[in-house]
Amino acid sequence: MEISEIDARIKDLDGEAIIQAQARLDSLTKPQGSLGALEEMVKKLAGIYRTSKLEPVQKTIFVMAGDHGVTREGVSAFPSEVTPQMVLNFLAGGAAINVLARHGGAQVEVVDIGVAAELEADGLISKKVKLGTDNMAEGPAMTKEEALQAIEVGMELSLAGIEAGARILGTGDMGIGNTTPSSALAHILASCPLDDAVGRGTGISGEALKRKKEVIARAIEINRPNADDPLDVLSKVGGLEIAGLAGLILGSALGGIPVVIDGFISSAAALVAAKIAPKSVDYMIASHQSVEPGHRAILASLALKPILMMDMRLGEGTGAALAMGMLDAAIKIYNEMATFTQAGVSKEL
Amino acid sequence: MEISEIDARIKDLDGEAIIQAQARLDSLTKPQGSLGALEEMVKKLAGIYRTSKLEPVQKTIFVMAGDHGVTREGVSAFPSEVTPQMVLNFLAGGAAINVLARHGGAQVEVVDIGVAAELEADGLISKKVKLGTDNMAEGPAMTKEEALQAIEVGMELSLAGIEAGARILGTGDMGIGNTTPSSALAHILASCPLDDAVGRGTGISGEALKRKKEVIARAIEINRPNADDPLDVLSKVGGLEIAGLAGLILGSALGGIPVVIDGFISSAAALVAAKIAPKSVDYMIASHQSVEPGHRAILASLALKPILMMDMRLGEGTGAALAMGMLDAAIKIYNEMATFTQAGVSKEL
Repeated sequence: MEISEIDARIKDLDGEAIIQAQARLDSLTKPQGSLGALEEMVKKLAGIYRTSKLEPVQKTIFVMAGDHGVTREGVSAFPSEVTPQMVLNFLAGGAAINVLARHGGAQVEVVDIGVAAELEADGLISKKVKLGTDNMAEGPAMTKEEALQAIEVGMELSLAGIEAGARILGTGDMGIGNTTPSSALAHILASCPLDDAVGRGTGISGEALKRKKEVIARAIEINRPNADDPLDVLSKVGGLEIAGLAGLILGSALGGIPVVIDGFISSAAALVAAKIAPKSVDYMIASHQSVEPGHRAILASLALKPILMMDMRLGEGTGAALAMGMLDAAIKIYNEMATFTQAGVSKEL
Repeated sequence: MEISEIDARIKDLDGEAIIQAQARLDSLTKPQGSLGALEEMVKKLAGIYRTSKLEPVQKTIFVMAGDHGVTREGVSAFPSEVTPQMVLNFLAGGAAINVLARHGGAQVEVVDIGVAAELEADGLISKKVKLGTDNMAEGPAMTKEEALQAIEVGMELSLAGIEAGARILGTGDMGIGNTTPSSALAHILASCPLDDAVGRGTGISGEALKRKKEVIARAIEINRPNADDPLDVLSKVGGLEIAGLAGLILGSALGGIPVVIDGFISSAAALVAAKIAPKSVDYMIASHQSVEPGHRAILASLALKPILMMDMRLGEGTGAALAMGMLDAAIKIYNEMATFTQAGVSKEL
């Protein structure tokens, strides 16, 4: 499928199911709308699943890992070798995402979509497009073909996930240096001023932070990405895991299931997905508001409201995993609360 | 114990345990501090429990119910009879707090501290101080002795909860009309302008909202509460469940365990507790940011940061129950993540 065809293939949410879910929510023993985001989630799930009958579902978080040539400019506090090391940590179950996914009852799938090292390990989904991106400060991070290939990997994985039983997907990322392309995407695709789009990432400050902004400005100067062409922007100043996650999000929308968007990197991918297929936004659920300053601008541009304000900045899908627990809570509220009639409680005056 | 003696009996948090917890957090495979509020919770728990060894603990939410004479002024969208009806709903397990407490693995205890109806039911903790407050727009809501008695009920219940094995308490409220006293408390004790302290409660608007502000202004005019005397303010424009929750919070601090503060009503109680014993704030964990506008002012005055932004405005302890799941997640992160050494991951450059 051409990416220009995706939007037309994404279904509008089912308005009738949303109305029915709203009616049931309003019959429950609480002031109308008083459970806020939990009620909004219920309605969104009903609209996406096209039914007002909601049940707990299987949840799978895809953590996509890729490296970034731009780390050669000294934009990160950690060396690139941490990317493959963390991939192995994910597979061994010792990373934050493993702990929080277990807590939230979600499966974790780990994908090598562009790690700059040959990796083979039990459980790893090997879909390497390329051994890390090229240095965007010197030329395009990747070719358009590579970006497309990474998007297709993501789309295929979402469909494979659905095939395997998942009914909610979550996004996760690993890639030393990846706040740099994400900030570039926020700047270009969400019209966020560069100073507001660039943050401390894993922990840089002072000179390194200044350098990070200069590197992005140089990358834009050299590559001249066309803001009206998301694939052009993605290939020139994006990342392989970002492209893969954009594909995963598009695949979720095409497959008719919700996708929980993690933090800054995942939201940059969501922004790319939204530019490719605006209707995909209907299928997105924002998890948390990251410390990264550009995150707020991206979520605002997508008109998505995060539910967690926990000052997190780790990625990996950690925010998505925590938010998945809230989706479970929302479904339980919907199914388990007593109605005014059942409980014999008086309604509004 | 005189309430003036409480502050001196609350222990400072254990700084050594906090330092040890920080060291362990910094050894885990993530950039330092990148799990934000989860890490802050771990440190707070270590400081409160006075140990850097943290385990999952028993959690109990006390839902205190009381009625409000001020409802005769037409400040609420629901009739007062809903208070006892909801108490029975809590006991039957059909309310939102029951669903979310089950989700978060917390017990719920329901307390009649001032419902304006004779209530007897299996499982109900009957500690009625009075059949609802008097109408604050015509005189004091209660006497100082009644306010003190309600505080003592809360303190005794927290100690009974600890005795029964609880190691985290949560606050919850039920009381038609109780955003009116809470707004009055926010206005007087958190110096929040009246217009910013008063919200729509269960769903009033227009004339009723205007009337609610006028009623509070009249109550202050008539009662002349002394802002420097929290017991005076509480008795004149507070509520029985608010007093009881203030006592529960003070009891948690005295008993050396954390207390998760629910939404606007619970935070008004926390504000009273903080004015009585400033050190009790160290033991408080803020759950969510309510839609009620005065909530923000109270949390700011307590220097507490909520972790959930879910546009909720239900009370009952629903926000506390959701936040308790996050405390579990924090403890798991602390105990289950691999260290840099264990995982063979490189540290910062």
